[in-house]
Amino acid sequence: MIKFKIIHQHERMRVGVVKTKHGKFKTPVFIPVATLACVRALDKRDLDEMSAEVILANTYHLFLRPGDELIKKLGGLHKFMSYDKPIVTDSGGFQAFSLGYGMEHGVGKIADNIFLEGLKIEEIGKQREKWAKIDDEGITFKNHIDGGIVRLTPKKSMEIQSNLGSDIIFALDECTSPLSDKEYTAKALERTHKWADECLKYYDRKQALFGVVQGGEYKDLRIKSAKFMAEREFAGFGIGGSLGKSKQDMLNIIDWVVPILPEEKPRHLLGIGAVEDLFNCIERGIDMFDCVAPTRWARRGHLYVSPAEGGNIKNKFRIHIQNSRFREDENPIDKECDCFVCENYSRAYLRHLYVSNELTYFRLASYHNVYFILKLVERIRNAIKEGSFFELKKEWLGYV
Amino acid sequence: MIKFKIIHQHERMRVGVVKTKHGKFKTPVFIPVATLACVRALDKRDLDEMSAEVILANTYHLFLRPGDELIKKLGGLHKFMSYDKPIVTDSGGFQAFSLGYGMEHGVGKIADNIFLEGLKIEEIGKQREKWAKIDDEGITFKNHIDGGIVRLTPKKSMEIQSNLGSDIIFALDECTSPLSDKEYTAKALERTHKWADECLKYYDRKQALFGVVQGGEYKDLRIKSAKFMAEREFAGFGIGGSLGKSKQDMLNIIDWVVPILPEEKPRHLLGIGAVEDLFNCIERGIDMFDCVAPTRWARRGHLYVSPAEGGNIKNKFRIHIQNSRFREDENPIDKECDCFVCENYSRAYLRHLYVSNELTYFRLASYHNVYFILKLVERIRNAIKEGSFFELKKEWLGYV
Repeated sequence: MIKFKIIHQHERMRVGVVKTKHGKFKTPVFIPVATLACVRALDKRDLDEMSAEVILANTYHLFLRPGDELIKKLGGLHKFMSYDKPIVTDSGGFQAFSLGYGMEHGVGKIADNIFLEGLKIEEIGKQREKWAKIDDEGITFKNHIDGGIVRLTPKKSMEIQSNLGSDIIFALDECTSPLSDKEYTAKALERTHKWADECLKYYDRKQALFGVVQGGEYKDLRIKSAKFMAEREFAGFGIGGSLGKSKQDMLNIIDWVVPILPEEKPRHLLGIGAVEDLFNCIERGIDMFDCVAPTRWARRGHLYVSPAEGGNIKNKFRIHIQNSRFREDENPIDKECDCFVCENYSRAYLRHLYVSNELTYFRLASYHNVYFILKLVERIRNAIKEGSFFELKKEWLGYV
Repeated sequence: MIKFKIIHQHERMRVGVVKTKHGKFKTPVFIPVATLACVRALDKRDLDEMSAEVILANTYHLFLRPGDELIKKLGGLHKFMSYDKPIVTDSGGFQAFSLGYGMEHGVGKIADNIFLEGLKIEEIGKQREKWAKIDDEGITFKNHIDGGIVRLTPKKSMEIQSNLGSDIIFALDECTSPLSDKEYTAKALERTHKWADECLKYYDRKQALFGVVQGGEYKDLRIKSAKFMAEREFAGFGIGGSLGKSKQDMLNIIDWVVPILPEEKPRHLLGIGAVEDLFNCIERGIDMFDCVAPTRWARRGHLYVSPAEGGNIKNKFRIHIQNSRFREDENPIDKECDCFVCENYSRAYLRHLYVSNELTYFRLASYHNVYFILKLVERIRNAIKEGSFFELKKEWLGYV
């Protein structure tokens, strides 16, 4: 189990500490994602050095590879991956979306990537066959490794997460598509609620179970779901996708849900971690974030920069290192960053490694991006304590 | 320039120190290869931590990408790659082979990888068109990046290496194929000798120029070449390929050449670094080695193990981590290894990362393999000093 202590509060923002049997982490927190028991391109010393206090691994992926039974046999996830700090695992429900309707609809958790106006759901995406199908009892996956069929149920998700031995686990939910209509979303919500109760029945009492609030972009469904979860004995709460069709939709959802959730339990906004979102969601009372963005963008050449280097909402606080303007640039990625990469390497060198597809590039880029987001959240945390959150937000986003 | 001091000698074996303006390195030495100004999958802190004292970068590759002019403009190779220890660069001559006859013949520096008996050169390889063609004045390459034509001459090689600003440089040579006949090899040798004199004329006096002994597997040519080089004002000597058709051919070549080379200058066996070869060549008076083997084998799943873990000549002191017998193996790669990977991670975990194609695998595997070879050479160095070289050799190779 875990203990959550709020040490400072300002409006809806909270600064706190979550204690687990593998140590504690401060909130608000950004949790790097270690999909396959490994934060991509990084190792445990990197994570310690950048003061990462907790990571999140993916239940579905580890279930397939190397298998939760093997991990249990080898002493659990902490021992297997040689990481002795807190570990969070998700439920596998997100993959029901990303390999299901997300694949079919060609969208992410927020459907702001395509032009939607005037289009019917039937007209969008549909080029790709779903790899995950959902029914009232669970999810059937076509395994993306060998094409075999695997089945995930609430009970099974609890068993896998128990085998993994993570500190914080999530109840299996159906993460709906931003393009699902209200009727479907309401039906999915019933399923998520039923599954939440099953997870409460079956989960390993040595772990801390979080329930996930669903309901898509629909206010009444979100409120219903938040009330449902709030009434139950969860150690904390996830807010899951769909998060609507715009960033404003996402913020509205948080505004509906957060006031209903118990103050004394942590709130995790699943799968979100862009710079702008961190500010706006922490402001609205979110305590925990996880996102693959820092490592994924790093691999694609996008490196985070602060406002001092021209980072802003429009460029998403990123430069693309392949740009020829960096060819002779002897500056670090970000002059304000004190990570080991910025202290040692120039943009010109990183550009050379990137265009040459050197393995070292992936490590250095991932290191900087994860470090950058961790330090930003640390600054936000301190700003809340010092009463300067809105100054910091203005400095970064240009608005309050 | 450099200074070479022999501090201990036993039979033909020597223990020494090479001093450069970027610090010193102990010999015998294994030099990790940083082809494109980066030891693949590793960074500068890794190299420092594993006590690498010198690295070798490839002139031809850096000439193409990012270009020696750019590196010069950015302050030279040391500054560009943020490495302040000694750097060696090769001449580009090896690529005349690997992209030339090596490609056409389908062989490496030692042609022990194919069945040769009874075959004529014309019958071997020939499936692949050469990307490098050689004439008396230089080498014409088809650039493997964009297909453009580039030209390397002795003078140009000196200019590029001067722009790079490496501490030790090599004269441009023709690295012949093990399948070249004596007539061709003799002709190539004349070219190499003429080019050596041109390099002596044009090289940057701030750098230490090594001449390269060629002559293939032919005793009289090797002796002729060794005498030619020995008479000239080189700071040290490379022994280049072809090294014949077997490991015994390679050792014979060393036995012919080494006694002719001046005692007081270092000898570098180019491109060789297998465990067995390190023992046998150091025994014969070789001081310096460079090889991509540790990093290349690491990327392909082959990890070095000591005799205590069953490493031997037959398995080339390697395990293949993909093997299903490592699936549940909680041991480190090598119990006798004290590298950070062996101290933290199990074979089971590394196998999982390898089969999942995780980027972190490449780093951890490369780290272990380079560390392993560096520590082995350190042990050999100490054994020579302590008079226990042959005991160590027996322990590892099973013979003296």
